[in-house]
Amino acid sequence: MEPMATAPLTLSGLNALPGQSFVAALAEVFEHASWVAEAAAAGRPYPTVLALHAAMIQAVRQAAPDRQLAFIGGHPELGSRVRRAALTDHSQAEQGGLGLDRLSAEEFDRFNGLNAAYRGKFGFPFIVCVRRHTRDSILRQFERRLAHDAETERDAALTEIGLITRLRLVALVDGPGMPVTTGRLSTHVLDTVAGRPAPGVRIALYEIGGSARGLLKEAITNADGRSDAPLMTGEPLRIGNYELTFQIGEYFGTKYSDGSGFLDVVPVRFAIAEPEGRYHVPLLVTPWSYTTYRGS
Amino acid sequence: MEPMATAPLTLSGLNALPGQSFVAALAEVFEHASWVAEAAAAGRPYPTVLALHAAMIQAVRQAAPDRQLAFIGGHPELGSRVRRAALTDHSQAEQGGLGLDRLSAEEFDRFNGLNAAYRGKFGFPFIVCVRRHTRDSILRQFERRLAHDAETERDAALTEIGLITRLRLVALVDGPGMPVTTGRLSTHVLDTVAGRPAPGVRIALYEIGGSARGLLKEAITNADGRSDAPLMTGEPLRIGNYELTFQIGEYFGTKYSDGSGFLDVVPVRFAIAEPEGRYHVPLLVTPWSYTTYRGS
Amino acid sequence: MEPMATAPLTLSGLNALPGQSFVAALAEVFEHASWVAEAAAAGRPYPTVLALHAAMIQAVRQAAPDRQLAFIGGHPELGSRVRRAALTDHSQAEQGGLGLDRLSAEEFDRFNGLNAAYRGKFGFPFIVCVRRHTRDSILRQFERRLAHDAETERDAALTEIGLITRLRLVALVDGPGMPVTTGRLSTHVLDTVAGRPAPGVRIALYEIGGSARGLLKEAITNADGRSDAPLMTGEPLRIGNYELTFQIGEYFGTKYSDGSGFLDVVPVRFAIAEPEGRYHVPLLVTPWSYTTYRGS
Amino acid sequence: MEPMATAPLTLSGLNALPGQSFVAALAEVFEHASWVAEAAAAGRPYPTVLALHAAMIQAVRQAAPDRQLAFIGGHPELGSRVRRAALTDHSQAEQGGLGLDRLSAEEFDRFNGLNAAYRGKFGFPFIVCVRRHTRDSILRQFERRLAHDAETERDAALTEIGLITRLRLVALVDGPGMPVTTGRLSTHVLDTVAGRPAPGVRIALYEIGGSARGLLKEAITNADGRSDAPLMTGEPLRIGNYELTFQIGEYFGTKYSDGSGFLDVVPVRFAIAEPEGRYHVPLLVTPWSYTTYRGS
Repeated sequence: MEPMATAPLTLSGLNALPGQSFVAALAEVFEHASWVAEAAAAGRPYPTVLALHAAMIQAVRQAAPDRQLAFIGGHPELGSRVRRAALTDHSQAEQGGLGLDRLSAEEFDRFNGLNAAYRGKFGFPFIVCVRRHTRDSILRQFERRLAHDAETERDAALTEIGLITRLRLVALVDGPGMPVTTGRLSTHVLDTVAGRPAPGVRIALYEIGGSARGLLKEAITNADGRSDAPLMTGEPLRIGNYELTFQIGEYFGTKYSDGSGFLDVVPVRFAIAEPEGRYHVPLLVTPWSYTTYRGS
Repeated sequence: MEPMATAPLTLSGLNALPGQSFVAALAEVFEHASWVAEAAAAGRPYPTVLALHAAMIQAVRQAAPDRQLAFIGGHPELGSRVRRAALTDHSQAEQGGLGLDRLSAEEFDRFNGLNAAYRGKFGFPFIVCVRRHTRDSILRQFERRLAHDAETERDAALTEIGLITRLRLVALVDGPGMPVTTGRLSTHVLDTVAGRPAPGVRIALYEIGGSARGLLKEAITNADGRSDAPLMTGEPLRIGNYELTFQIGEYFGTKYSDGSGFLDVVPVRFAIAEPEGRYHVPLLVTPWSYTTYRGS
Repeated sequence: MEPMATAPLTLSGLNALPGQSFVAALAEVFEHASWVAEAAAAGRPYPTVLALHAAMIQAVRQAAPDRQLAFIGGHPELGSRVRRAALTDHSQAEQGGLGLDRLSAEEFDRFNGLNAAYRGKFGFPFIVCVRRHTRDSILRQFERRLAHDAETERDAALTEIGLITRLRLVALVDGPGMPVTTGRLSTHVLDTVAGRPAPGVRIALYEIGGSARGLLKEAITNADGRSDAPLMTGEPLRIGNYELTFQIGEYFGTKYSDGSGFLDVVPVRFAIAEPEGRYHVPLLVTPWSYTTYRGS
Repeated sequence: MEPMATAPLTLSGLNALPGQSFVAALAEVFEHASWVAEAAAAGRPYPTVLALHAAMIQAVRQAAPDRQLAFIGGHPELGSRVRRAALTDHSQAEQGGLGLDRLSAEEFDRFNGLNAAYRGKFGFPFIVCVRRHTRDSILRQFERRLAHDAETERDAALTEIGLITRLRLVALVDGPGMPVTTGRLSTHVLDTVAGRPAPGVRIALYEIGGSARGLLKEAITNADGRSDAPLMTGEPLRIGNYELTFQIGEYFGTKYSDGSGFLDVVPVRFAIAEPEGRYHVPLLVTPWSYTTYRGS
């Protein structure tokens, strides 16, 4: 998914590079703005990747207002089909993951309308770290940020640029003090009739959006009542609404029937609000009852 | 909904009627089979409505095989549009409540195919007490009963006739010892953050079928965390699959958002298998966890 | 337990009595202070018992400071053995229920020390509505109120007198608008393995005090998983700490053993803080798990 | 606690030793029965410690009846003060951990009575792996095994010898395929009001015996809602009854009071039946409710 397939750079390597090479190596982190890397080059050596990123962000935040606005204005419009060709490879990969290149005509119109209103008010394109979002949460954020005043919104745009470039930097550089950019969703099924983990329970994870419902993952619990791998991991979790379903009737042999069953498919709906958070959503279950909660 | 709008008969009144009047009064209970009421007339007086119904059922079960089969065979075909005109008023009302008069072409074909296969195997129409069923549970029962041998299925048909006529008798006659023919579904929302019932929670009840999802009821919890009236009552519960949804995010003020919420709409899916049962489905809830169970 | 065994007065009867008879009838409500009833006599007729009590309390609160202090000062010292002979019958019954007449030498000394400190600071005896308290909660309240300033404490004493006299009035008079003076504690055991109430579970209720643990009640759950009668009812609940124990191992046949059991006796400890409240403490239980909560 | 402070033997070392040295190295595993190690020496090399132990046990189980009985009969009497001097160091350490050397006169009499009855019936002393037991569970097992017939009980005694020697072997030898001889008890407190682990909760673990209640451990939950180390680990768990207490009122700031609190100390009582098992006993808690279960 990441376009960089070459061996990652190391922080110590970056610290030791000649200035120009350092700037070239980080060119893709802040698109079309080599002055950011140039400013960061002067602060070397950096003890952690986190410190390197903080220095680059500081360079942006301390830039002269004109340069800052030009920099913000140089970002691509979100969900704009007509401009898709002009995206850098990174922007294209990020927006593609969200399905912004597969918008329906109606959604395309809605995004276009919001883009136009936003640009009309603020004079630059709407910027959001799409890898941390579902389509629904982008739309909600779009509408919320449209209500900002200019200064608040410029700050919000810079915060999103920080999140976008942090992900790019982490994909590019290896070293001590990596920023946390990934979240995790896991589950655990306890059979409280037998007092032990429930093995063999089929579970499915859906994103449930305003319009759509997309199957993200299927799994079967192992002997410890867990999926072998986390349901989502290795990336930011996308802010949005989700549903886990547990095939409990099948597990207990009490499927929906004209017999005496009660629970069959147990759905658990929840929101993810922290893309870098750990979400553990266990199920304590009998054929007649269950408890679920945000665990840790 | 019931076609009988006249004052109900009383059991003591029935016990005292001349034989012919008794038979006439109960004519609609066993359609086209006045001999059932005739047999029951001889056993009077009955101390309870339950005893009266038992006597009528016994008359059917002890009838000569030919008469019994003719009686079973005189029932209308289920879901058959072409024969709808020939239904007694009662059968029409009962099948109408299930939506069997609003079948899609595909469902109509499926019912027709099952009807034909059933009649081909057993020589009489498929009989089921439709007021105790959803469309889904009728189809499941249809398929299950098609696998029966002749004797088992004749018994199953008589059992269903017993359930149908029990409902008719209860609608017609008032008196001591009424059979239980109604079920009840209720809920209760406890806010375990505050340690008290949760008032003002919007809840909705859906039937969730193979193909469709039908809203049956909406309610808002009162000061005691309950709906003012049971969600379903006064009739048999229809065997089938249901979903209750609780607007918990709205209640706690933690709706799905880019903020810090977790639970918004809490869905609870369950099967109803006992049409005359009491189903109490409480929710103990915080913004981050809940417990639900079949209560009493 | 109540010394009044005669037929209760009715509010309408009181409303119609000559003034002197009214005062005589209510003499025991405000001990040694007939002026309170005299003041209330003038406000008749009262539509509710609540209104009658409010009028009597208002008379006390609006009395001249000297009279009010004399009135407060006329109350008996709490837990004072030497003065027990001087108690009115009502005070004796109330203090007896708490076991203040069965104090150990150490407790007697502690009460005496608090009484002396309190009288030394405020100039009148410590007054508390003992029927709403356990020994422990009285001691805690004693210590808390000793820290009051004079005005706050006079108000606290009058509040307690209101609670004491409300109980006396309710025991004496019957009529519309009775104040709520009783609480209720109940429980309910749900077997979530079977999805139904758990019958035959032995439960016990204890008061758990600083030093002691007193068995208050034993019961066995009925077919509905409840005790036939509430565990406590008909009186104010005593503020304090309690423990319910449920013999769950016995119920499930999984008693503590060298076998494979986990739960045997399930203890649930809780505080009662509202003497006139309804406390429902259910248990949802399997042999390996349980949920309990303050229900309603 | 273990008398062996020298560097542990390795399995590969044992496999390579001359026969006599092998027997000498394992002399303490089967006390006073060097023929067991001699038999095992012939089966070398052993791929796992488990296989070595199995071979030694097989030697015992296949020994001639006379030798087997003499071997069983050579074990020390349980709880016998007068014979304590004759115990090997290992037996002394094992019995000491249980407090069998600190018996009250009454308990001493009870043990002595059971020992006498047992020896009278079976002709050899009662053998039990005391490190897997509390005093209560030993007494229960004593009484249960007294009811055995001779053959069943000889088998039970050999099973216990297997458990005892397995612990000794594991303490003595290091290598691949170690038998599992330790259990683990842990807990986890989730604050379901806040949807996160509860830090700073004081917890205590007690053994609750027939007569006594002994504090085993105190801990405070860390940022992840867990104790820094398991509550019990590194040894077999002793079969018996336990209570965990959680200072929930303190955590939520709603201690028992005359205010509005409900939960203060939450006790959870449970039995441990599997000394080598993992017991995880979480608490999901609000100020008004909690759920606990045997987790994993």
